[in-house]
Amino acid sequence: MPTFTVYKGSESGKITKAQTTRDLQGDAVLVKVTASGVCGTDEHYKHADMALGHEGVGVVEEVGSAVRTLKKGDRVGWGYEHDSCGECEYCLTGREQYCPDRKIYGMADFDQGSFASHGVWREAFLFKIPDAITDIDAAPLMCGGATVFNALTAAGVKPTDRVGIMGVGGLGHLAIQFAAKMGCDVVVLSGTDSKKDEALKLGASDFIAMKGKDQIDVGKKIDSLIITTSAMPDWKVVLPALAPTASILPLTVSEGDFSFPQNPLILGGHTVYGIAVSPRAVHRQMLAFAAHHNIKPVVMKFPMSEEGIEDCMGTLRDGKMRYRGVLVPQQA
Amino acid sequence: MPTFTVYKGSESGKITKAQTTRDLQGDAVLVKVTASGVCGTDEHYKHADMALGHEGVGVVEEVGSAVRTLKKGDRVGWGYEHDSCGECEYCLTGREQYCPDRKIYGMADFDQGSFASHGVWREAFLFKIPDAITDIDAAPLMCGGATVFNALTAAGVKPTDRVGIMGVGGLGHLAIQFAAKMGCDVVVLSGTDSKKDEALKLGASDFIAMKGKDQIDVGKKIDSLIITTSAMPDWKVVLPALAPTASILPLTVSEGDFSFPQNPLILGGHTVYGIAVSPRAVHRQMLAFAAHHNIKPVVMKFPMSEEGIEDCMGTLRDGKMRYRGVLVPQQA
Repeated sequence: MPTFTVYKGSESGKITKAQTTRDLQGDAVLVKVTASGVCGTDEHYKHADMALGHEGVGVVEEVGSAVRTLKKGDRVGWGYEHDSCGECEYCLTGREQYCPDRKIYGMADFDQGSFASHGVWREAFLFKIPDAITDIDAAPLMCGGATVFNALTAAGVKPTDRVGIMGVGGLGHLAIQFAAKMGCDVVVLSGTDSKKDEALKLGASDFIAMKGKDQIDVGKKIDSLIITTSAMPDWKVVLPALAPTASILPLTVSEGDFSFPQNPLILGGHTVYGIAVSPRAVHRQMLAFAAHHNIKPVVMKFPMSEEGIEDCMGTLRDGKMRYRGVLVPQQA
Repeated sequence: MPTFTVYKGSESGKITKAQTTRDLQGDAVLVKVTASGVCGTDEHYKHADMALGHEGVGVVEEVGSAVRTLKKGDRVGWGYEHDSCGECEYCLTGREQYCPDRKIYGMADFDQGSFASHGVWREAFLFKIPDAITDIDAAPLMCGGATVFNALTAAGVKPTDRVGIMGVGGLGHLAIQFAAKMGCDVVVLSGTDSKKDEALKLGASDFIAMKGKDQIDVGKKIDSLIITTSAMPDWKVVLPALAPTASILPLTVSEGDFSFPQNPLILGGHTVYGIAVSPRAVHRQMLAFAAHHNIKPVVMKFPMSEEGIEDCMGTLRDGKMRYRGVLVPQQA
């Protein structure tokens, strides 16, 4: 029975080291963590008594007796999904993220996460990492990359579309790359010009600084708008930039309401997609696509330790992350 | 040059009789109106100096020299769309309702409408009425029927879906029939039980009276929710009735915002479809489907006259329409 180190939230919000023991029965796989991305969602659980992290990458150390496709030494990753029933309508149609019995980060498996030395996970919810992608580059793809790729996929974004990406952060800087490599014409909507050069380098054709503007000129109108900022846009400013039948994808978890002027919604023929966790089939396509097109996150590395995690989460909180934090074991 | 009678709105809101003259050149068709539906949207324009009505049905009386497919005596109808450029991306992909140069009711052709003795319209925007559908039954299909059919089509509603229809009125009573005949299991959400028997007769499997309830039990959850009421639902009550990945279709024109709790939107994988005017290809499918399945509006007839129109619009305003008013020329 493997025992390993995890890093948990706590009532005070302080990151706390703890030990977890897990069985290695059936199709369970023991993964030694070599990199973990840090996502805004982790911040939401900082005050909970649970192990943090859901962008895990590592190496298989040991496998349960029923494991069929993985072996010691394989490089694997995992994300938001831990398990699902495999039998319901949603599981059977490749939408297991909606399985009523799903286990996902924040809702189950509070004793382990990717801020850890190891994890024990079901084989079926681990993804092989393509050779072309390093562990550190793979980690932010496990949630951030999968989420934006899933959004582009679920909204049926076409290579001929003009895609607007609002916000250049952990999700946005990956969305720019995926959309551009899908053939899309990408326009980035950001607060100021500070991330302009980087956004263009990542594949954007155009960059609009929005701050203080009550109207914007995006040129050719936007067919699909991916919103990665926590605040929703001022629709008075953004609506005239949307093409008829544009899709709108608010990706941020928020306790508030999504509000959109009803007449423009209806008369513009817009569609609003609620998108969060990527299902496994799409996650695999994402990894293959990223490998094929050399899509890589821009990362800042921090040590996998209480101090390293605090430092990383503070950098994210202060808006200083460029663009995704990755925790790396200190001996690595 | 045909001259004919139209009924217009006016500053005071009083319906006013007027004369219009139109050329009958090119592909124009002179239609003698035999029935016109009355839609809530007409109410919006009652105070405008424009001819009212956009659910027209009648008989071809004369055709312009370039008309190719229609001839005198043909039964035809028209709806919201009057014209589009035929050349833009939207026209070329069967989405001419979003053509930047479109002419639609309320935005163009203020001198004529379906509250009239005649109309002159482009051949390409007239629909042949199937033999199985009477003029009076066809009229409410020209906007109401087309809108709900378009909604079901655009949201990709499947025969195996459970469809929720909110509101039993001009749109709702047609939506029940279309969805039921598509094979869907239909649950109706209404204020009180007053329309229950009729809703079940129209094809609903279940009927829920919502008034005063802070929770509802719809049984099997709803895969697609069509909202035909002017007020949006209380999402606290309705959200638990939605299946994961449910589609939501608010069909009502409204100056307010469409608001939906963001976390349930994202985590439930819901999609909100902005739907209004049906494009012609879908409109034709709707007519063929209605004819094949004997789908008919429940109508109340009023004379096509100033008094008849006032009476009909008043009945609608008072919530007493069961379920769509149709204006019929007095000599008919």
